[in-house]
Amino acid sequence: MAKTAGIIVIGNEILSGKTRDENALFLVRELRDLGVDVRKISVIPDELPLISHEVREFSRAYDYVFTTGGVGPTHDDLTMDGIAAAFDQKVKRQPELEQTLRRYYSADVIEANLRMADVPEGARLVGGYGAWFPVVAVENVFIFPGVPEILQRKFERIKEMFREAPFHLREVYLRADEGQIAAILHQLLAEYPDLMLGSYPYFDNPIYSIKLTLESKDAAYLDRAHQALLDQLAAIHLFPLL
Amino acid sequence: MAKTAGIIVIGNEILSGKTRDENALFLVRELRDLGVDVRKISVIPDELPLISHEVREFSRAYDYVFTTGGVGPTHDDLTMDGIAAAFDQKVKRQPELEQTLRRYYSADVIEANLRMADVPEGARLVGGYGAWFPVVAVENVFIFPGVPEILQRKFERIKEMFREAPFHLREVYLRADEGQIAAILHQLLAEYPDLMLGSYPYFDNPIYSIKLTLESKDAAYLDRAHQALLDQLAAIHLFPLL
Repeated sequence: MAKTAGIIVIGNEILSGKTRDENALFLVRELRDLGVDVRKISVIPDELPLISHEVREFSRAYDYVFTTGGVGPTHDDLTMDGIAAAFDQKVKRQPELEQTLRRYYSADVIEANLRMADVPEGARLVGGYGAWFPVVAVENVFIFPGVPEILQRKFERIKEMFREAPFHLREVYLRADEGQIAAILHQLLAEYPDLMLGSYPYFDNPIYSIKLTLESKDAAYLDRAHQALLDQLAAIHLFPLL
Repeated sequence: MAKTAGIIVIGNEILSGKTRDENALFLVRELRDLGVDVRKISVIPDELPLISHEVREFSRAYDYVFTTGGVGPTHDDLTMDGIAAAFDQKVKRQPELEQTLRRYYSADVIEANLRMADVPEGARLVGGYGAWFPVVAVENVFIFPGVPEILQRKFERIKEMFREAPFHLREVYLRADEGQIAAILHQLLAEYPDLMLGSYPYFDNPIYSIKLTLESKDAAYLDRAHQALLDQLAAIHLFPLL
């Protein structure tokens, strides 16, 4: 079984349509490449009880949880408090983070800047030091900022810790109506119950009107299922395009 | 109080990063323009128990629920079954939808095509007839397909039923560090507790480094809060850009 993950996107600006979220898309693609199965994405407001509720549920349900957003110094940055509450922890100032902030802001440092060193008491720092902060993690929850460039740089630094056996993928493109192949797909899944099988209609493509995706971590199993599908399709005179 | 909404995006292809979701972004922008407050977006797999659980929770928590995806004729189209289960209803064939499908497929119609007329027994049809299907709704849940063009056309047809008092928005752009203004924002919210106030850092903009957003459905209240903010900023020699 693949390791599972959940992603919690925290930010009113996403829910009000002011900002397009780029982080969930980045993380699902990266995690898929690493062989991790993302099971859920939630986008929630900057509100402490909602953050702590979601983090608690996700932490129990999935192997890894990734949060994005809400880690700055202002009133709407409640992620650290929410995660602390989820694990019945207090927030306290982390000395190494405080030192990093004092170095960055130098003589101009004020108390509000140092608030970014306030993390759940059980937090650990992963990913070592680079130009900026390490990743803060609590239990199985990895905490990322909302700014895509910073999130991406931080994820790059720790991603190898999540790598496992890859997913293998086959795609089949057809010119047909989904109804025509529904019974074949149903039968294929009865024979290959562990196959991940998707069927997606396209209404505006000049060449194909269905894309089928077949996936498995077991390459041999996937090849057999793929061949079985092609045989079944050929029996009703449907042949893959592209 | 604004009416609230939740959006449930159903589809393995989003969680595996194969497809970028366009529907949640479209819906949050449209709903915001209509004056509706979107409180949560969930992206979940094509699995019946997960769909029914999420729909039940959302239906209780929000005034309106919008689902996207999982309404075709194949094995991975489980939205109708999931929504029926959420309300302890059975799925049954809807005569008007069946008629529409028979007209569309004409002599080629097969049983798998007609599956798209199988909807929860308590479903009603909204939005009337156009070139294609009406929107199917059950209780406060509005069911949309995953194909963005079709979703958008269907939403256009019914959106006026959701319209209410609009949100008013002011934006303030600054060149400063968020830490510098954290206390001012905190104080502003103490004086204007109903203000929706966001603070967003930018690290790569040549002109500004913070965008503040102020929102309310009460335009006069918003104007007073906006002026109070500008006064406070001026007191520490910060002036809006742009």
